[in-house]
Amino acid sequence: MTPPVRLGMVGGGPGAFIGDVHRMAATLDGELTLVSGAFSRDADRSREKGRELGLEPDRVYDSWQEMAEREAGLPVERRIEAVVIVTPNHLHHAVARTFLDAGFHVFCDKPMTNTVEEAEDLCRRVAETGLSFVLTHNYTGYPLVKEARALTRAGRLGTVRKVVAEYPQGWLSRPIEAEGQKQAAWRTDPALAGIGLALGDIGSHADNLTRYVTGLEIEELCADLTSFVPGRVLEDDANLLIRFAGGARGVLYASQISVGEENGLALRVYGTEGSLVWRQEEPNELRLRSLDGPEQVLRRGNAYLSEAAKAATRIPPGHPEGFIEAFANLYRAGAARIRGRTDPGNLDHPTVWDGARGVHFIHKAVESARTGGWVRAGYLPPGEP
Amino acid sequence: MTPPVRLGMVGGGPGAFIGDVHRMAATLDGELTLVSGAFSRDADRSREKGRELGLEPDRVYDSWQEMAEREAGLPVERRIEAVVIVTPNHLHHAVARTFLDAGFHVFCDKPMTNTVEEAEDLCRRVAETGLSFVLTHNYTGYPLVKEARALTRAGRLGTVRKVVAEYPQGWLSRPIEAEGQKQAAWRTDPALAGIGLALGDIGSHADNLTRYVTGLEIEELCADLTSFVPGRVLEDDANLLIRFAGGARGVLYASQISVGEENGLALRVYGTEGSLVWRQEEPNELRLRSLDGPEQVLRRGNAYLSEAAKAATRIPPGHPEGFIEAFANLYRAGAARIRGRTDPGNLDHPTVWDGARGVHFIHKAVESARTGGWVRAGYLPPGEP
Amino acid sequence: MTPPVRLGMVGGGPGAFIGDVHRMAATLDGELTLVSGAFSRDADRSREKGRELGLEPDRVYDSWQEMAEREAGLPVERRIEAVVIVTPNHLHHAVARTFLDAGFHVFCDKPMTNTVEEAEDLCRRVAETGLSFVLTHNYTGYPLVKEARALTRAGRLGTVRKVVAEYPQGWLSRPIEAEGQKQAAWRTDPALAGIGLALGDIGSHADNLTRYVTGLEIEELCADLTSFVPGRVLEDDANLLIRFAGGARGVLYASQISVGEENGLALRVYGTEGSLVWRQEEPNELRLRSLDGPEQVLRRGNAYLSEAAKAATRIPPGHPEGFIEAFANLYRAGAARIRGRTDPGNLDHPTVWDGARGVHFIHKAVESARTGGWVRAGYLPPGEP
Amino acid sequence: MTPPVRLGMVGGGPGAFIGDVHRMAATLDGELTLVSGAFSRDADRSREKGRELGLEPDRVYDSWQEMAEREAGLPVERRIEAVVIVTPNHLHHAVARTFLDAGFHVFCDKPMTNTVEEAEDLCRRVAETGLSFVLTHNYTGYPLVKEARALTRAGRLGTVRKVVAEYPQGWLSRPIEAEGQKQAAWRTDPALAGIGLALGDIGSHADNLTRYVTGLEIEELCADLTSFVPGRVLEDDANLLIRFAGGARGVLYASQISVGEENGLALRVYGTEGSLVWRQEEPNELRLRSLDGPEQVLRRGNAYLSEAAKAATRIPPGHPEGFIEAFANLYRAGAARIRGRTDPGNLDHPTVWDGARGVHFIHKAVESARTGGWVRAGYLPPGEP
Repeated sequence: MTPPVRLGMVGGGPGAFIGDVHRMAATLDGELTLVSGAFSRDADRSREKGRELGLEPDRVYDSWQEMAEREAGLPVERRIEAVVIVTPNHLHHAVARTFLDAGFHVFCDKPMTNTVEEAEDLCRRVAETGLSFVLTHNYTGYPLVKEARALTRAGRLGTVRKVVAEYPQGWLSRPIEAEGQKQAAWRTDPALAGIGLALGDIGSHADNLTRYVTGLEIEELCADLTSFVPGRVLEDDANLLIRFAGGARGVLYASQISVGEENGLALRVYGTEGSLVWRQEEPNELRLRSLDGPEQVLRRGNAYLSEAAKAATRIPPGHPEGFIEAFANLYRAGAARIRGRTDPGNLDHPTVWDGARGVHFIHKAVESARTGGWVRAGYLPPGEP
Repeated sequence: MTPPVRLGMVGGGPGAFIGDVHRMAATLDGELTLVSGAFSRDADRSREKGRELGLEPDRVYDSWQEMAEREAGLPVERRIEAVVIVTPNHLHHAVARTFLDAGFHVFCDKPMTNTVEEAEDLCRRVAETGLSFVLTHNYTGYPLVKEARALTRAGRLGTVRKVVAEYPQGWLSRPIEAEGQKQAAWRTDPALAGIGLALGDIGSHADNLTRYVTGLEIEELCADLTSFVPGRVLEDDANLLIRFAGGARGVLYASQISVGEENGLALRVYGTEGSLVWRQEEPNELRLRSLDGPEQVLRRGNAYLSEAAKAATRIPPGHPEGFIEAFANLYRAGAARIRGRTDPGNLDHPTVWDGARGVHFIHKAVESARTGGWVRAGYLPPGEP
Repeated sequence: MTPPVRLGMVGGGPGAFIGDVHRMAATLDGELTLVSGAFSRDADRSREKGRELGLEPDRVYDSWQEMAEREAGLPVERRIEAVVIVTPNHLHHAVARTFLDAGFHVFCDKPMTNTVEEAEDLCRRVAETGLSFVLTHNYTGYPLVKEARALTRAGRLGTVRKVVAEYPQGWLSRPIEAEGQKQAAWRTDPALAGIGLALGDIGSHADNLTRYVTGLEIEELCADLTSFVPGRVLEDDANLLIRFAGGARGVLYASQISVGEENGLALRVYGTEGSLVWRQEEPNELRLRSLDGPEQVLRRGNAYLSEAAKAATRIPPGHPEGFIEAFANLYRAGAARIRGRTDPGNLDHPTVWDGARGVHFIHKAVESARTGGWVRAGYLPPGEP
Repeated sequence: MTPPVRLGMVGGGPGAFIGDVHRMAATLDGELTLVSGAFSRDADRSREKGRELGLEPDRVYDSWQEMAEREAGLPVERRIEAVVIVTPNHLHHAVARTFLDAGFHVFCDKPMTNTVEEAEDLCRRVAETGLSFVLTHNYTGYPLVKEARALTRAGRLGTVRKVVAEYPQGWLSRPIEAEGQKQAAWRTDPALAGIGLALGDIGSHADNLTRYVTGLEIEELCADLTSFVPGRVLEDDANLLIRFAGGARGVLYASQISVGEENGLALRVYGTEGSLVWRQEEPNELRLRSLDGPEQVLRRGNAYLSEAAKAATRIPPGHPEGFIEAFANLYRAGAARIRGRTDPGNLDHPTVWDGARGVHFIHKAVESARTGGWVRAGYLPPGEP
């Protein structure tokens, strides 16, 4: 085994659930290890988290700027190799830019940036530096999402005609941002989250998942965005009609006021010859249908699956894998790339260019809602190989 | 028991599946009986069907015009009391109009008519005559749809914010109308089906079900209609964004090119306090969720259900009821109305006015698709009590 | 169409749910019609039911004995052709015997009789008379049960090794027989129900379904019977291990104290090459598995099903059929037999011989529980063709 | 954070899936770390695995005996604190005994030993030494299994009357042990696996899960054991009837020839007031039923769950947790015990005494099958607090 990739984390301080998920996912296979961090703007809280994680105190920093500078000054065999960015959205660009400039690979949470300009800036930096950039659209890590992609790309569905992508949640049904819920507070604040709430937080996942599985690019869209909860500026419910290049049609929605829903991300793809359904809350099965025969239920871990699906699993069939394992597959893909084991032209993880597409998608949806109708939304991010 | 309501049927000749469904539904409870028919434009086929059904030969007619005239001439205790219209859509208006004018009650398949003008004409005739008119949006007959309505109307979900209504089918994924499939042939022919295919055949059900359960009226809509199958004029896929009066939002789609789907009608309603999910293919359960507690699975036939749901069921819990039983509830409601057992101001079945709303909905969706954006779609049919 | 088979019913008075089910099932297809009845020991209640059903008053009798005698005296073209027996169990034998002797065909509820001797007496009478005898183990009427049978008999599972048949219910979890619930009262009374409660009421269904699908005959069994509810004499929970002739093994249980269960009848059959699962509460799907490929979900009404499954369905896929439709298939099979349209040597419905096997099964289970261990339970009823 | 508990592993060499599961589970939370191992009888393979895991070469041993001796000789702050035993069953006793004697805590796979005498020997050693012994009946780690336990123990079901515990698998449907499948080879070899195949491998889980949730102790049992696959000595299908102390009844089966099943472990518990159902393949939901109201679906991670269930989860609702996370909860419980954070008299993980019960259960099932009937099976392991 090659030594594990050394990681530093920006964000993910005490109480920030997503930082722990990233840590568990990164270290699950022993291929990466967390050695450094700037976990909070508050230096005391950053050090508290460092102690909780058992890090060496001199690798825990008061700010991410300090971290970038001092880590870059460490001996090459000791310094971090990659940074994990799990801050609120508005910082993604500055942090990613700084660490890329310092020569570090990046794992960055989504949405990638708050503006398209920032996103494109990162695209160009990644293209220029040749560094790895993994955008953690984690749902792409599920083995049966990879199976869905493999089947669709191999033509098992024929030509795709229709996609239904939905992501209902209910946790923002009440104004909990006004009651001190920190996860809600920053997500509902345009200064931190950008111009979208449901769009950025979960709609971007639905958009990315659609593209990851089908390869379809959006050509036009029409969005209806609503802020249902009193006092909320950003939309907590987003419904879109989509026209893809080549003629396929889509329905995509993201909602955070859908009481009783947890993380109901689901993707349905219908082609001329077959269709498939995948649901995130039951991720170990994929339903595959054809024009004539009975529906098939494909289950994770079985020999009949594609190589891509089999490579993304750790345990035999029937013992469920979940969210953390799927997330870990993105880290494993990043580690393989950093260690030079994968072809940079054929990456099996969301990239900086996917990130730019996602930011562009959010902006076009907002534009459509503001102008009240269909908008053209084709897009090619700069620097994509 | 009062004697069964005597029915005549127009349409439903040999091979027409829906005629048999209407007959089974109408007679399931012994409250209606089929005594007459004009089953086909082809007099031989009409008589063939009459023989198959064991009808008296002199009550089987060569045309519906003849039937209306001759039945009206029979002694009042012998003639039919109501007509069942199961022809292709383009005939609904003329047949309904003729039988209403002859003093007969009507059970009519959906969509009610091909034009809004025809629909409004029927509205006015029903209002003037006081006759019963049951539009067979049969899904409203399911006991747990009635439960969903009762819960929603009683405020168990709080204020409704969002509705997702979908009706995917796959049976028109290929151009089977060109291969002699008669059900497909007339539905894809604008001269017979009107201006909508998926919209009329199944989208109108999704629209009606939404209104039946929530009581929400459409204010604006934006539709994307596509004809995927080569050679097809009408849309086989219809996706809509909806804004309801009062601020609720909706996603509604109907598709007949969704390979692998059978009759995937599903309704999800989200309010400020709770939500519910009902799926036509598993009609004996209804999922009810609240802001805080666990999801509940309500099952048909149980004592904890509303009176409306309990009155619409025939057998104890755990023995599934299906499509025919639900359909039969519309006939039972019609029989009760004809026999004077229900309040005409409070009918628990889709009415002529619901039919007009459905026809209006189809036309507005087509207008939106043609003009390429949002259209206002508020509507009040004439003569509604 | 041949004229409908004329039926008389014994039992099924006011409030007896099962009588209405039989009537709806019998008449669903228009192939049988109810013209006569002795609905209750109480002549007034019998007449009340007759009026409710709209029967001619002179065809409603004060007792089943009177009915047998007087119907037999009617002109052949007017008298009933078959009797439907829906009384408590203890009367099945006497009624069936009497009507068979009078030359009438029989539809009889299960368990067939209270003793093996009575059962064998009916077997011999049916063999001698050549009359039709349909035992209403209604679950065999579901289309996908017929598919399961067709697949298993055709060897799609290889050699059957294991069967798990279960029928949990919860409705007798409390002593409702002491609270005036009539359905509970007679079923828990050995004088009326015979020597088994859960065994007779639902265990006999699980046993019959197993045999219907697999063709396996029981060789040995070991039963554990318990009366959980205080004051109850008969068992309300029955758990059995079974050894079938040829080496297959089985687990079979029936329980009426399984709180929260409605009619959870389920059958799982495992062979050397494949397996299948069918659940009564979701009767429109059948799961089929093989050694290597993905699970298949077969759905009612599709072209890929066997002829037997297709012949047993009335409506296209995706519109659920339920309990009444399945039940109606037994009546349709009986009508076909009575009208001479089927081969008496190859009947697709439970017969008098299946009934005898069921009664024998109940008695062997009770014997096993009493003696405390395995008992031999092979059995061949007399007179089977 | 206290420093992580240092682990050594015995077994789990190259290709042994379960070793990697233990390592992922042990290290998921950063509370334990693997520092040493004797991974294979073959010293080269042991070293190969050590390199793959990035261990220091001098902490990888040629045999477990050497490991026990040399680790015990290391400075106390460097030596391992606990051993993880993942060998075939026949070695569990000797390894556990040796490491307990050397003062190390133990994590041991199940079944605990091959004989009751060995099991009781371990019970006594644990009682005497006061060391921690975690038996990795990993299914008890699922949060909703803990919820099921909490609800049952709190009386939400009333008095338990009936338990149905099943564990069907299909992977041993063919004689793959003869085709070089190593996992199958040792499990089907009595010299390595002991007297049970399905009983030891998975039946012991079903037995343990039943006891963990309900607290019920077996009083009598009757088992039917079959070896279906030609050439197999041990049973690959085990069906049992169970009588619990206090009067509850049970059906328990374990099967490895159930084609198409993966790890279908399921538990149903029925009491006088309610019931629950949990299925391992959908572990994030638990169904709870009562005498009168609708079924509730409890989902992992929600605020309405018990403290025990909430403490056993890592991520919010709707993002599935799986097998590895559940397994990790046993390691977390062990670490807490080793670090003195839990009360040894109230351990929330399967113990050495549970292990003895499991071995006793297997032996009694085999005795019942050999003698052909019911056997008494009450048991109290020695030394239990």
